[in-house]
Amino acid sequence: MQNCTDIDCVDLKNLYFTDIYPIKEDSNIATKAFLQKVIDVCMQFIVESNDRSEPIVRFNDPEELKHKFDFEIGCEPRNLELIVNDCASALYYQVRTAHPHYFNQLSCGLDIVSLAGEWLTAAANTNMFTYEIAPIFILMEHEVLKKMRTIIGFNDGESILAPGGAISNLYAVIVARQKMFPEYKTNGLLALKQQLVLFTSEHSHYSIKSAGAVCGFGTDNVIEVPADSRGRMLPSELERLVKAQLDLGNRPFFVNCTCGTTVLGAFDPINPIADICTKYNLWLHVDAAWGGGLLLSSSQRYKLDGIERSQSVTWNPHKLMGSLLQCSTVHFKQDGLLLETNQMCADYLFQQDKHYDVSYDTGDKVIQCGRHNDIFKLWLMWRSKGDKGYEKHIDHLFEMTEYMLNGIKNRGDKYYLLFEPECVNVCFWYVPERLRKVPHGPERAKELGRVRFDSLPQTIIIIDEKIVLFYTQITPILKGRMMYSGTLMISYQPLGDIPNFFRNIISNAGVQKKDVDFLLDELDRLGKDL
Amino acid sequence: MQNCTDIDCVDLKNLYFTDIYPIKEDSNIATKAFLQKVIDVCMQFIVESNDRSEPIVRFNDPEELKHKFDFEIGCEPRNLELIVNDCASALYYQVRTAHPHYFNQLSCGLDIVSLAGEWLTAAANTNMFTYEIAPIFILMEHEVLKKMRTIIGFNDGESILAPGGAISNLYAVIVARQKMFPEYKTNGLLALKQQLVLFTSEHSHYSIKSAGAVCGFGTDNVIEVPADSRGRMLPSELERLVKAQLDLGNRPFFVNCTCGTTVLGAFDPINPIADICTKYNLWLHVDAAWGGGLLLSSSQRYKLDGIERSQSVTWNPHKLMGSLLQCSTVHFKQDGLLLETNQMCADYLFQQDKHYDVSYDTGDKVIQCGRHNDIFKLWLMWRSKGDKGYEKHIDHLFEMTEYMLNGIKNRGDKYYLLFEPECVNVCFWYVPERLRKVPHGPERAKELGRVRFDSLPQTIIIIDEKIVLFYTQITPILKGRMMYSGTLMISYQPLGDIPNFFRNIISNAGVQKKDVDFLLDELDRLGKDL
Repeated sequence: MQNCTDIDCVDLKNLYFTDIYPIKEDSNIATKAFLQKVIDVCMQFIVESNDRSEPIVRFNDPEELKHKFDFEIGCEPRNLELIVNDCASALYYQVRTAHPHYFNQLSCGLDIVSLAGEWLTAAANTNMFTYEIAPIFILMEHEVLKKMRTIIGFNDGESILAPGGAISNLYAVIVARQKMFPEYKTNGLLALKQQLVLFTSEHSHYSIKSAGAVCGFGTDNVIEVPADSRGRMLPSELERLVKAQLDLGNRPFFVNCTCGTTVLGAFDPINPIADICTKYNLWLHVDAAWGGGLLLSSSQRYKLDGIERSQSVTWNPHKLMGSLLQCSTVHFKQDGLLLETNQMCADYLFQQDKHYDVSYDTGDKVIQCGRHNDIFKLWLMWRSKGDKGYEKHIDHLFEMTEYMLNGIKNRGDKYYLLFEPECVNVCFWYVPERLRKVPHGPERAKELGRVRFDSLPQTIIIIDEKIVLFYTQITPILKGRMMYSGTLMISYQPLGDIPNFFRNIISNAGVQKKDVDFLLDELDRLGKDL
Repeated sequence: MQNCTDIDCVDLKNLYFTDIYPIKEDSNIATKAFLQKVIDVCMQFIVESNDRSEPIVRFNDPEELKHKFDFEIGCEPRNLELIVNDCASALYYQVRTAHPHYFNQLSCGLDIVSLAGEWLTAAANTNMFTYEIAPIFILMEHEVLKKMRTIIGFNDGESILAPGGAISNLYAVIVARQKMFPEYKTNGLLALKQQLVLFTSEHSHYSIKSAGAVCGFGTDNVIEVPADSRGRMLPSELERLVKAQLDLGNRPFFVNCTCGTTVLGAFDPINPIADICTKYNLWLHVDAAWGGGLLLSSSQRYKLDGIERSQSVTWNPHKLMGSLLQCSTVHFKQDGLLLETNQMCADYLFQQDKHYDVSYDTGDKVIQCGRHNDIFKLWLMWRSKGDKGYEKHIDHLFEMTEYMLNGIKNRGDKYYLLFEPECVNVCFWYVPERLRKVPHGPERAKELGRVRFDSLPQTIIIIDEKIVLFYTQITPILKGRMMYSGTLMISYQPLGDIPNFFRNIISNAGVQKKDVDFLLDELDRLGKDL
């Protein structure tokens, strides 16, 4: 270990993990030097991710990447200079999800205040199960979650942060079951004798079906309700299907109403669905994992009108609100149900006789036992923006979406828009030159989105001096070209009868008009000849 | 926005979130300046956490803390100097879980390489559901999880990282059910007609019981198997209880064998339990969330002999292996079951026609859909240590535990050890002066650990000029005194008939002999007069 007092004179290649931890009280220079080097690597990545001239990704096939990157963990310790290099190499090959030309996921961008929050969270390295070891963060959860419930329109109630929207939805299902059939907790579903049934739209997230499997209802008892052509659940169909289940002697108990579907960004109509839930005594859950952010905008929140009539709401700040991954919340109108559902009376972990008010301990309310601290990054971010700043954040995303729609319309027959969106999901086909004069119909749609699983490589293209093989038709090929050129990322998928189409997402506050222009022109550059 | 090129001349109090994000390509000085300030705050916290003269915690009751700390999120944006101050204030009140005198949880310490990994993970901000957006991290998962399976003794198989050990155990339960009763997935448990039954020791983690509730078996059908006096499941009792369930016409199918119980650190004997599982066709799961780390030490791993006979294993690197929270893994001997169990065929999310080998996508194998990147911090840490470094890490924890046991014995009648531990859990009572000459027996144990829920404040003590009220008897009072003095943190709990006792954990690689000496002397200083 060197004798130096400045982190710049520390030579990491002579240092190993034992030189930086345990931290020496009198000389923590090595520890600081190592961490600063890693931060420098991160800073460079962050700046490059926001540099429009940098690639989004240097894509490699899995087998290729295995050869280029040394993943192996050896027997001997590795010096810290090599560890810093490992960090730089990992980021070299990683997709830059903060890049303004990355439109691929519901979570895009890298809010800097939220990042700062996550860095602090890592340094604090605590578990959220008791006030004892996370006092400040537990109270932050109370403050932020209460604020979110107020925004939803719940006067009282309780909430919890969960590891992702799927688990949040699972919470809603188990809490609803507990409230309506409390005897199941000790006796099990078999003792209920009647088959419990759930309802969700055919366009909803698959986590409702997954909860049906996990909870033992069976996926056949999670009924998919037909949606209209824009992806919104048809209340009349819901009522018809509820009645059909009643006729079978089954017990409908749970309806999931999606506000912001994954692909189309559709909002199920809450009020008519709530009427049906009231009529048939069904638990109404609103999955606003995606669309919840609209509640922050006075011009957008009408799309969730009636949300306060629900019994539970999922809302993921790591999506439209731009918090770092992961940050998912689930809210309940009634207080006390989480404990009722999940408490296993583990006194050995959650002592009731501690020297403070243990009602703040959350361990016994959750299915995870330990919980990651997902609140600080959200609290800090929200505090920096204030409610007004957040409203602007959401409104900006919709302005950019509007700009994109106009851009598509202005580009004539190069694009075919599936429909006018309700959210920031813009669903479209890119139309290569040869098909522009073909009138749109099922035949052209098929050609635009078609996939041939039986095909051999059909196209060999050289991009940036690399030979690239493509297998299928227009949309997937174009996605492949984006990835290999590294200039753009947009997701695509089929949906029901609709063949593969692009779903563009603007959820990164860093996206500007010039990025939308780039997106529409770049697609044309990459796909014109297809 | 200032015109300066050096981060030191940026004045954060004139800057707001909009000045640092979106990042300006030509001038990212403000962004860097803000992040560096937050890192400086974190660095100070890290250094202080490792300074033995610093308090572990400045404890405040919830109501008190609400007055001292401003949690409120306002309407207007807040300048970035205030945001940095918020970071510093939050850490001021936060428990320093990395402090060498923090022995409170199964996860203690703050490994610096793992921290660096988590900081990078935050900057990369991606989701683990597809190779497309997390190529490098997905392949790291493959490498590390395969290595862990090899260490367990599984030749093939598959694994997944989950948000905590409780969810890992839930995975084991649902995969076992899928393998043994595949028809439940579509039809539900009601259609199986027979009651499924699980078995776990009375000392096991409550997550097995919780899984029984979540999955719809009912907690009454999670049978608690009696343990011996050291907390190890009695195989003869297991067999008796399995037979009893068969006699009732029920269907036993799952046995959880704990390697490293939460309180006593006991290891259920795997081989005799595996024999019973073979005989009665039961799925054997090993919950080594806590004890899994022993597999890395050639002198300790015998305590998990037979683990390779299990069908699934939970193992949390965020515990004995010292990775940052969260990092939990679950491993399966047979490959393909995760997909079979959890696949909902969401083609709209996990397209099968992408331009790379989609078998690397994990989204359809899990119940979370999106997953936090929990692998990088572990990979980086393991790579820095190498297998040899990790073995030393584990062995060091056991050496310190041995040193503590000797320290207890050398201090005569000041301490009463419950038993010789198998793991780093040291369970004991502190004996104040007045009780040292009383022979140990149920009466003295009751006095040492007693709690009186009906009591009014019995003791008023002034510590560091603060008035502190204490309500109950010796062990909880002593814990309260630790918290208010901020010098020490050790967990306590009752267990079955045993009244409140301390459970000390040495899982921080930073703990040295002088810390163990401090711990034993400090307890005496704080508790002598009780």
